[in-house]
Amino acid sequence: MNTTTEDIANPPVISRLALIGVGMIGGSFVWSLKRAGLVKHVVGVDENIAALTQATEQGIIDSKSHLDSLQPVDAVVIATPVGAMFEVFKALNQHSWIKQAIITDVGSTKQSVLAACERACGELPPLFIPAHPIAGREHMGVAHAEEMMFYGHRVVLTPHANSDADALIQVKTWWQAIGAKVDVMDAKTHDEILAATSHLPHVLAYALMQLIAESVEKNPRANARDAAVHAILDYAAGGFKSFTRTASSNPIMWRDICLNNKTAVLDWLVAYQDTLKTLTERIEAEDGEALLDIFTRAKAERDKYLLQ
Amino acid sequence: MNTTTEDIANPPVISRLALIGVGMIGGSFVWSLKRAGLVKHVVGVDENIAALTQATEQGIIDSKSHLDSLQPVDAVVIATPVGAMFEVFKALNQHSWIKQAIITDVGSTKQSVLAACERACGELPPLFIPAHPIAGREHMGVAHAEEMMFYGHRVVLTPHANSDADALIQVKTWWQAIGAKVDVMDAKTHDEILAATSHLPHVLAYALMQLIAESVEKNPRANARDAAVHAILDYAAGGFKSFTRTASSNPIMWRDICLNNKTAVLDWLVAYQDTLKTLTERIEAEDGEALLDIFTRAKAERDKYLLQ
Repeated sequence: MNTTTEDIANPPVISRLALIGVGMIGGSFVWSLKRAGLVKHVVGVDENIAALTQATEQGIIDSKSHLDSLQPVDAVVIATPVGAMFEVFKALNQHSWIKQAIITDVGSTKQSVLAACERACGELPPLFIPAHPIAGREHMGVAHAEEMMFYGHRVVLTPHANSDADALIQVKTWWQAIGAKVDVMDAKTHDEILAATSHLPHVLAYALMQLIAESVEKNPRANARDAAVHAILDYAAGGFKSFTRTASSNPIMWRDICLNNKTAVLDWLVAYQDTLKTLTERIEAEDGEALLDIFTRAKAERDKYLLQ
Repeated sequence: MNTTTEDIANPPVISRLALIGVGMIGGSFVWSLKRAGLVKHVVGVDENIAALTQATEQGIIDSKSHLDSLQPVDAVVIATPVGAMFEVFKALNQHSWIKQAIITDVGSTKQSVLAACERACGELPPLFIPAHPIAGREHMGVAHAEEMMFYGHRVVLTPHANSDADALIQVKTWWQAIGAKVDVMDAKTHDEILAATSHLPHVLAYALMQLIAESVEKNPRANARDAAVHAILDYAAGGFKSFTRTASSNPIMWRDICLNNKTAVLDWLVAYQDTLKTLTERIEAEDGEALLDIFTRAKAERDKYLLQ
């Protein structure tokens, strides 16, 4: 992987940009670009009319369109859940002007996005530069867009073998202009790393909330189910809240991520279950020494890298 | 369980209170009591001399002593890790004055604390009122004590069959005076609930950090181990950081909790592994509908109770 640090002065301004999928991440990205003076006009495309209205009110988009009737733009940002991207690429590919537009996306899985694009377009367009900003909130919807969301955060670009060098520089420039730290790596490396640091923790948090909901239902004493869940969660301190924060994320997005980064997510899930099995056995055996070793080491790793 | 809401005006002032175990939680508790005007003099007892010095500088303790030479006090707060409490009770039980002192603790497991006390003293002292404040930080040490730590938080009291009614009211009053919401329940119910909302998430977070450290070590490509862990964690967004926050907690405290609430922790750990198995199978089968159901329900539960 390769971190670029050069400053690029006066990046070229995008006259017309299409945002496909008007949600929190895409909305934050084009909003930031606008505030940086890098884009003049944003066309919003979304099946959700309320999202378009909201984004218009926020000043994030300037006009609305449909995938099929979209007029020529200089740049396309695809910000739908990754499961919807195949259809987006197929529709875009019907437009003759698409060959001159820089295309990028903000999807959380990169191999599957490249595969969807290739399947939909027959080949990977040279001006397609996949991107994934490592930021976000557990909220969903363009109402939660923030113009500083990516400031100081990393963004990973995963160009393909035929990606155009100038297009790569352009997309880099956009992210750098809004304060992100740009890394370039291959899609497979991206997917393996993110499976560990993002996809796995999300699945684990969803699993905990699911378990608690299910346990209360199965509990014969819990005739007033809501009261019982509430009673349990009443005793949830800050640790529980931060642990499960990601379980408040967009379920469609996370279903798509699990399906689109299946191999890496499964690898980590299986490995995690092995770790849990070891811990379970150590607790069963009342092996305080082993538990202390594991906890001490885990704490040391986290403190070293995340408490700076 | 029974939430008390009565205001108690002018609770009696404690002339001398002994704090056994001068750390973040115990330090915060007696500091809050002092600021509320409820205690005049705090005697600190800890094997860690630096903690005693630090607490003296902070104004949290007024004098220092040892368990064996401790002079009569009106109240004792035991705030060591729960694994150390048996020895504390044994030492306290050597003092003839202990029968007149109200004893409480701040341990995270309650059945084991009651058992340790009974084993050490022969019987449960009527003036012993176990307590567990549902608050805290991932930090450790009295330097992290905060005089408002428990304001607005819940505290669970788990009196035993022979607990003195007046002593229970006294301990309630202390917590209410520093802004905590007091609940009274039996120790078993407490331990079962906390295993789900606190103990399990801590174990899961430790397991994730352990897995990442281990995976990097096993990876033959990772010849520069630190660089590799750092590279992975560089791509950890807010979700990972909040998910693993609890893995920065005190390892001794959490070893003790696992050993002292073994049955309930194991029950939840086993159930959680079943939930993960189901999720793994659904991802393997690419069953998007089931994944969406599970994630949607998990999100709904969390949003309903924790995003208020």
